[in-house]
Amino acid sequence: MDFIENIEWSVLMTNAGIIILKLLGIIIAFLIVKAIGNKVIRKMFNRLQERENISNGRALTLHSLTLNIFSYVLIFIFIVMIFQVFNYNVSALIAGAGVVGLAIGFGAQGLVSDVVTGFFLLLEKQIDVEDYVTVAGFDGIVEQVGLRTTQIRGFDGTLHYVPNREITNVSNHSRGNMRALVDIGISYDDDIDKAISVLQDVCDKLSTEDENIVEGPNVLGVQALGSSDVVIRVLAKTKNMEQWAVERNLRKAIKEAFDANEIEIPYPHQVNVEKK
Amino acid sequence: MDFIENIEWSVLMTNAGIIILKLLGIIIAFLIVKAIGNKVIRKMFNRLQERENISNGRALTLHSLTLNIFSYVLIFIFIVMIFQVFNYNVSALIAGAGVVGLAIGFGAQGLVSDVVTGFFLLLEKQIDVEDYVTVAGFDGIVEQVGLRTTQIRGFDGTLHYVPNREITNVSNHSRGNMRALVDIGISYDDDIDKAISVLQDVCDKLSTEDENIVEGPNVLGVQALGSSDVVIRVLAKTKNMEQWAVERNLRKAIKEAFDANEIEIPYPHQVNVEKK
Amino acid sequence: MDFIENIEWSVLMTNAGIIILKLLGIIIAFLIVKAIGNKVIRKMFNRLQERENISNGRALTLHSLTLNIFSYVLIFIFIVMIFQVFNYNVSALIAGAGVVGLAIGFGAQGLVSDVVTGFFLLLEKQIDVEDYVTVAGFDGIVEQVGLRTTQIRGFDGTLHYVPNREITNVSNHSRGNMRALVDIGISYDDDIDKAISVLQDVCDKLSTEDENIVEGPNVLGVQALGSSDVVIRVLAKTKNMEQWAVERNLRKAIKEAFDANEIEIPYPHQVNVEKK
Amino acid sequence: MDFIENIEWSVLMTNAGIIILKLLGIIIAFLIVKAIGNKVIRKMFNRLQERENISNGRALTLHSLTLNIFSYVLIFIFIVMIFQVFNYNVSALIAGAGVVGLAIGFGAQGLVSDVVTGFFLLLEKQIDVEDYVTVAGFDGIVEQVGLRTTQIRGFDGTLHYVPNREITNVSNHSRGNMRALVDIGISYDDDIDKAISVLQDVCDKLSTEDENIVEGPNVLGVQALGSSDVVIRVLAKTKNMEQWAVERNLRKAIKEAFDANEIEIPYPHQVNVEKK
Amino acid sequence: MDFIENIEWSVLMTNAGIIILKLLGIIIAFLIVKAIGNKVIRKMFNRLQERENISNGRALTLHSLTLNIFSYVLIFIFIVMIFQVFNYNVSALIAGAGVVGLAIGFGAQGLVSDVVTGFFLLLEKQIDVEDYVTVAGFDGIVEQVGLRTTQIRGFDGTLHYVPNREITNVSNHSRGNMRALVDIGISYDDDIDKAISVLQDVCDKLSTEDENIVEGPNVLGVQALGSSDVVIRVLAKTKNMEQWAVERNLRKAIKEAFDANEIEIPYPHQVNVEKK
Amino acid sequence: MDFIENIEWSVLMTNAGIIILKLLGIIIAFLIVKAIGNKVIRKMFNRLQERENISNGRALTLHSLTLNIFSYVLIFIFIVMIFQVFNYNVSALIAGAGVVGLAIGFGAQGLVSDVVTGFFLLLEKQIDVEDYVTVAGFDGIVEQVGLRTTQIRGFDGTLHYVPNREITNVSNHSRGNMRALVDIGISYDDDIDKAISVLQDVCDKLSTEDENIVEGPNVLGVQALGSSDVVIRVLAKTKNMEQWAVERNLRKAIKEAFDANEIEIPYPHQVNVEKK
Amino acid sequence: MDFIENIEWSVLMTNAGIIILKLLGIIIAFLIVKAIGNKVIRKMFNRLQERENISNGRALTLHSLTLNIFSYVLIFIFIVMIFQVFNYNVSALIAGAGVVGLAIGFGAQGLVSDVVTGFFLLLEKQIDVEDYVTVAGFDGIVEQVGLRTTQIRGFDGTLHYVPNREITNVSNHSRGNMRALVDIGISYDDDIDKAISVLQDVCDKLSTEDENIVEGPNVLGVQALGSSDVVIRVLAKTKNMEQWAVERNLRKAIKEAFDANEIEIPYPHQVNVEKK
Repeated sequence: MDFIENIEWSVLMTNAGIIILKLLGIIIAFLIVKAIGNKVIRKMFNRLQERENISNGRALTLHSLTLNIFSYVLIFIFIVMIFQVFNYNVSALIAGAGVVGLAIGFGAQGLVSDVVTGFFLLLEKQIDVEDYVTVAGFDGIVEQVGLRTTQIRGFDGTLHYVPNREITNVSNHSRGNMRALVDIGISYDDDIDKAISVLQDVCDKLSTEDENIVEGPNVLGVQALGSSDVVIRVLAKTKNMEQWAVERNLRKAIKEAFDANEIEIPYPHQVNVEKK
Repeated sequence: MDFIENIEWSVLMTNAGIIILKLLGIIIAFLIVKAIGNKVIRKMFNRLQERENISNGRALTLHSLTLNIFSYVLIFIFIVMIFQVFNYNVSALIAGAGVVGLAIGFGAQGLVSDVVTGFFLLLEKQIDVEDYVTVAGFDGIVEQVGLRTTQIRGFDGTLHYVPNREITNVSNHSRGNMRALVDIGISYDDDIDKAISVLQDVCDKLSTEDENIVEGPNVLGVQALGSSDVVIRVLAKTKNMEQWAVERNLRKAIKEAFDANEIEIPYPHQVNVEKK
Repeated sequence: MDFIENIEWSVLMTNAGIIILKLLGIIIAFLIVKAIGNKVIRKMFNRLQERENISNGRALTLHSLTLNIFSYVLIFIFIVMIFQVFNYNVSALIAGAGVVGLAIGFGAQGLVSDVVTGFFLLLEKQIDVEDYVTVAGFDGIVEQVGLRTTQIRGFDGTLHYVPNREITNVSNHSRGNMRALVDIGISYDDDIDKAISVLQDVCDKLSTEDENIVEGPNVLGVQALGSSDVVIRVLAKTKNMEQWAVERNLRKAIKEAFDANEIEIPYPHQVNVEKK
Repeated sequence: MDFIENIEWSVLMTNAGIIILKLLGIIIAFLIVKAIGNKVIRKMFNRLQERENISNGRALTLHSLTLNIFSYVLIFIFIVMIFQVFNYNVSALIAGAGVVGLAIGFGAQGLVSDVVTGFFLLLEKQIDVEDYVTVAGFDGIVEQVGLRTTQIRGFDGTLHYVPNREITNVSNHSRGNMRALVDIGISYDDDIDKAISVLQDVCDKLSTEDENIVEGPNVLGVQALGSSDVVIRVLAKTKNMEQWAVERNLRKAIKEAFDANEIEIPYPHQVNVEKK
Repeated sequence: MDFIENIEWSVLMTNAGIIILKLLGIIIAFLIVKAIGNKVIRKMFNRLQERENISNGRALTLHSLTLNIFSYVLIFIFIVMIFQVFNYNVSALIAGAGVVGLAIGFGAQGLVSDVVTGFFLLLEKQIDVEDYVTVAGFDGIVEQVGLRTTQIRGFDGTLHYVPNREITNVSNHSRGNMRALVDIGISYDDDIDKAISVLQDVCDKLSTEDENIVEGPNVLGVQALGSSDVVIRVLAKTKNMEQWAVERNLRKAIKEAFDANEIEIPYPHQVNVEKK
Repeated sequence: MDFIENIEWSVLMTNAGIIILKLLGIIIAFLIVKAIGNKVIRKMFNRLQERENISNGRALTLHSLTLNIFSYVLIFIFIVMIFQVFNYNVSALIAGAGVVGLAIGFGAQGLVSDVVTGFFLLLEKQIDVEDYVTVAGFDGIVEQVGLRTTQIRGFDGTLHYVPNREITNVSNHSRGNMRALVDIGISYDDDIDKAISVLQDVCDKLSTEDENIVEGPNVLGVQALGSSDVVIRVLAKTKNMEQWAVERNLRKAIKEAFDANEIEIPYPHQVNVEKK
Repeated sequence: MDFIENIEWSVLMTNAGIIILKLLGIIIAFLIVKAIGNKVIRKMFNRLQERENISNGRALTLHSLTLNIFSYVLIFIFIVMIFQVFNYNVSALIAGAGVVGLAIGFGAQGLVSDVVTGFFLLLEKQIDVEDYVTVAGFDGIVEQVGLRTTQIRGFDGTLHYVPNREITNVSNHSRGNMRALVDIGISYDDDIDKAISVLQDVCDKLSTEDENIVEGPNVLGVQALGSSDVVIRVLAKTKNMEQWAVERNLRKAIKEAFDANEIEIPYPHQVNVEKK
């Protein structure tokens, strides 16, 4: 066993001592950083909850998510450091594994994108369950805001699963009063002033009857001189999600008032010229 | 053979000893990590199955897939480590082979993208065989959800093979009740109230007769003042996939009720003015 | 010749010995890996052929392709390793040649993309020669599925060369029965029930006469209340590629039955109002 | 305890001395750079505020934002330097963690993009709260300009959350006078000169009555020879946001003036040729 | 000259010897690789020419192109190796010159893309001079297939220069027989069977007269029930580029046969309802 | 204080000497390069101003911008070099900070893109304040050309802020004479030659009266045989920005000349066939 | 001054000697490479000019451009090499300055792209001043082909500045004869043979009269059976840029010939069915 004697045991020993010291240092640093990090995150969320007026459930979701991500990152760094102590260059191992790494990196990127967007959707309260929104080309009621996907129930009953990374611009239709708008055409032969006064009467009556109307309705004036009719615009502000009902009521009331006052809603017109 | 004597055998020996020790360490680490990893994955899937209410078959598919991926990654790392012990920098070899690596990386990236998306499609139950879905612009019944491709049978009989990476937004039409919507135009000369009451009678009768109707149908009111007709909207909620049959029944019943009550569904109108 | 004596021959000798040993090791490793790889690939394809029911010709094509790729990769690695033994960092050479490498890499990437997609097209049997498919916006009969390009013969006689990488979603119209669908408009004055019973008679007769019809045809009901006609939908399932002939027969039979029963297929209608 | 004696304590000591000196140097440098940086930023903003005429609130927001970013970057560099002193290559650690780093990098990139764009939106005063703007395809009144998102209230009541990075071109409709434009068609049988003089009379009257009109309105001339009418264009410059009201008033006045002067706004014409 | 004596001449000498040996090795390797490579390329093209039936001119073009590329790559590697011998890290020099290199790399990438695509266009015979093709949105006759650009003469006389990299899908209209298709509408009052028999007579006559017709023409049946006409489809297969002439002849013959048999090609119909 | 004695003071001293020498060298090089660079830039701009005929203000803007960029780059390099002397690898620090660097890099890239494009917009005089241009889909008068954004005032009063990087193609409508084009339809029953001679008379008269017309107007001939009219085209060249006024005058003059000569501008025609 | 004595002067001296030798070598290599390069470029352009028939001015432009680029690249390499001799890793400095480098790299990339495309536009003569071309969506006459931008004068007088990198496909309308095409509709009641013979007479007459016609015009036959007319196509080949004048003459001559021969160019037809 000449070979074993050749090994320089003393060097090995010294190295082993250094390694053990390093390991101890890393573990202690790890524990300290984790404790401090957790405390910082807890305080941050307490302050955030007070300041931004976030509901308890939402704050808890965000808090536990942040803690999870923090501990995963810490464990990852911890493992890499330990490997480096043993002189296995793990990060090079992963980075160097170009083929696999690149592919996985892109995959993971999608996930991270989803989670980051989901985080801000929750934090900035852009979207809430039960909201009527338009995101990524889909229109409907939000059923669930997850970290990876948001579920939107279309008005025809379809359930749309939208990955959060697809959500850039959010159009939220449940943030305040909505507008009810009716464009109504009258004949070129009718008197505009008379039509407007009839319309305003209808508006005033509806305004007192319908409690869903917040403001108006009011007659704005001549919106267009169409090919067969003079278009007059009526505008109102309604409670949220009541805009369609108000518009339907407005249309019915206007039609009936026009019938009573003999104002015509004209069909398309055409002048026929006989060829000489 | 002076040359062989020149070789420093003792250094070689020491190196060999270190290499053997390293190899042993790697193999042991490999076995331990594999055992622990398998256990962790098994437990994770057990908990997941309980919590998320996943069917047994689906859970098994996901479990074996996860185990496969885990062991492939482990073997890859194992091989690279062993090469590194012999001082062949394999990862540099692969990464450095820029031309080939880049090309293969992009190819493999597509595969990984497919598998990752497929994994989440299965895990989050966004898509099930027999579902009627719209994904990547294709409309149809899901025939198979694979890890690389999803097969969708279009209503015209075409079989669409969609790589999973092409599936971002999923519109699933088989997740709950659907809407039946019929817009019906009446003449400007007809009485709106009478038309609405006739329509509501039709709706009430159908509602009791047709067990596919879950809610309604109800008359919403005047949806639009068209160029030749007053459009009234009727809405119902039906059992899944029965929306078209309900709509067809509604249309037939409305047409017959209007004929009986002499309410006109008007043709397009045009006012002819004779040129003076 | 003082200079030659200055060279440290002993160091050179030792190095030469190590190099020769390394070369031998690489060659042996190369031979072993190649033999094992070939065996593994052969077994894999045997099992694949049994399980997936792939035709012999197709299996041979895929087998030889896989063997080729495997041996090219092996030879590439082999050459790089030998160069490294002589301390020429070949991979750095290639990777470092950034300008040329980047350009070629992108070029080669396209080729690899083509081959990878071609491989899966063949393996997953998404496309077969003689199939009627829609890929990359082209419609037609597949003439050839190559590793780089797929040739599709359009119905107007044009031959489309589609690089495989352009093929993502595959719509294969030759995978099972197809649908024949005829929408037919009847007059608002006609009786819907009578029209439906006439249509169903036509369908039943055709169903017994035409052996290309697999299921139906059946009358679904009132599909729409059009501006001038009540649209009724008829649906059938036919043998593959016979859907157009069945639709043509259906249309002719319906037209003749309607003529016989005096049911009108209406022209567009317009109500003319005289200007008072 | 032979092993502890083997450790070369003197080398360790020397290293420790160097490390302590380096740490001191870094901390001092850190403090100096921070103090200088803060001073420079303060002066820069003072000068900027004077020169660019920025409101106090806006300047404070930008100032504190710049200070925050500066101190984060400094702390980041500080930490990395300290780690390097202890020979842990932190930057390599982060960079090498290719998979995670790449993914997070892309996520963070989005955030940075948002903040950078937000910074310039505020600095260059392209957007102000209460402005009527068109950005990223959304039309409406700006409700809030944040560092990450801008909130725009659409005219129909919808609240659009637009991430700042989506804002490239900004169309601000609240920067000066707006244009009111009315195109009016007269009959081919009417005299153009007479129509223009009637129109100009209307314009002149309105110009004196309506204080929202800044310039004009003026009759430009024959804008087009349409299929049934000669189109004449009227143009005015109005106070901001009053363009629609002015256009409505113009249309009503023109219609009434034409009625009074018997100038016809023609319906679409068609020449009917009887088939011989 | 104390300084010159200080230089370790012996070390310099040894290095010089090693460098000269290395240079010799590189030059010899270069010559061998070049000779072998040329031979391999020549053989490859001989075999390719036999197997793929490529014309002599085309084979020569491809051969000399391949030889050129091969020798450029070899010379590039040769130069880099020689620089490395003198310890100037040329590849790092080029790669490190990030700014310039990146920019040039992208430029060169376009060129390489052009050449690679051009190579395959020539090799796979997707395009030939005088072919009628559709590539990159341009329609016309190929005038020249170069390595960088392809020239296509549009039917209106325009000469389109298309960089080869823009050519992905190639639609070649000069690869076999083409289809002539005529859709003809008959009146709803005409007898379908009679019309079809008249059409088939026309087709049979033309089929014997016109030698450009390869197959058919045949009457397929009722293609559609239009709003004013019953559409019948006629199909033929013609010699390449003769499809338009055949279609023109078909249309003229059908029109004349219909006139002779009093079958109407109907104008658009409209039912006029008088307002009660 | 055994520890301090252990430090190898002599080595430290030597290093310190080298460092000081290096620092001196760097500072001297810095000063020389700066002086030379400034001189070169000044001369370059002097020559440029003479040759390209650039206005003084514009030249000053470009000059000071170039000097600023040059000195920033120099200072950056200077700092990095000094850090390298102290063995802190600053560039690695920045580059290695992959996450932050990548994100900032992309942000800064946008700024640089803006500035580079702005530089060329100014230098090549593609855009001037007061020009009427179409860039990035926006139409209007240029109000300001900045280094980061260009401000364009739309004709409706909107102010568009366009980041320079969005400006690729510039369509400048203020670079020379413009075209006035009027297409006029006459009846199929009118004599083409008579109509053309009447039109040419109108053109000749206008040409002498209107000093905004540079060339023409001339009658080109029969531009199209429309469905109801024979379209004749009239073309003129006008002073810049006067094209619309000239077109309006042309239309009015033509209409009046046609009325005087009894040439009809026809309404859409339709042949009515009575159903037998 | 113990410290100065500690410096190992002899090592410094040796290094200085090596550095001076290296510098000399680099300078000599630089001069040789430059001389050879210039000669090679000159010869290349001489040969190119002879072979490709390039005008003198164009050849000079390309020649001086190539010389400039070559000398810039050489100077860049020269500077980097000299810095490397002094052990300042300049390339790392530039490359490492990731933030700035990346940003500038992208900016410079655009410039290089412009210049490369401009180079090939000039060399391959795809575009010439005075040509009528369609590039990057712009239609017009080329006014200037620069290395960075191409100026195109639109037919409406607008001057389009197109960066060369935006120019991929070039459609040059000034490369040979153009096509004149007139589609003319005759009545369904007219005799096709008579119409064709009248048309051919017109064509033959025009062909002898108009020297701008190179080939034809010829009557091709029945191009379509329209809804109200039988469309007949006439085709001619004309001198470049004369196609529009020829088409106008053709239309006028055909209209007059049809009037003389009482062949009708029909208005749109409609069959009116009276509602029973």
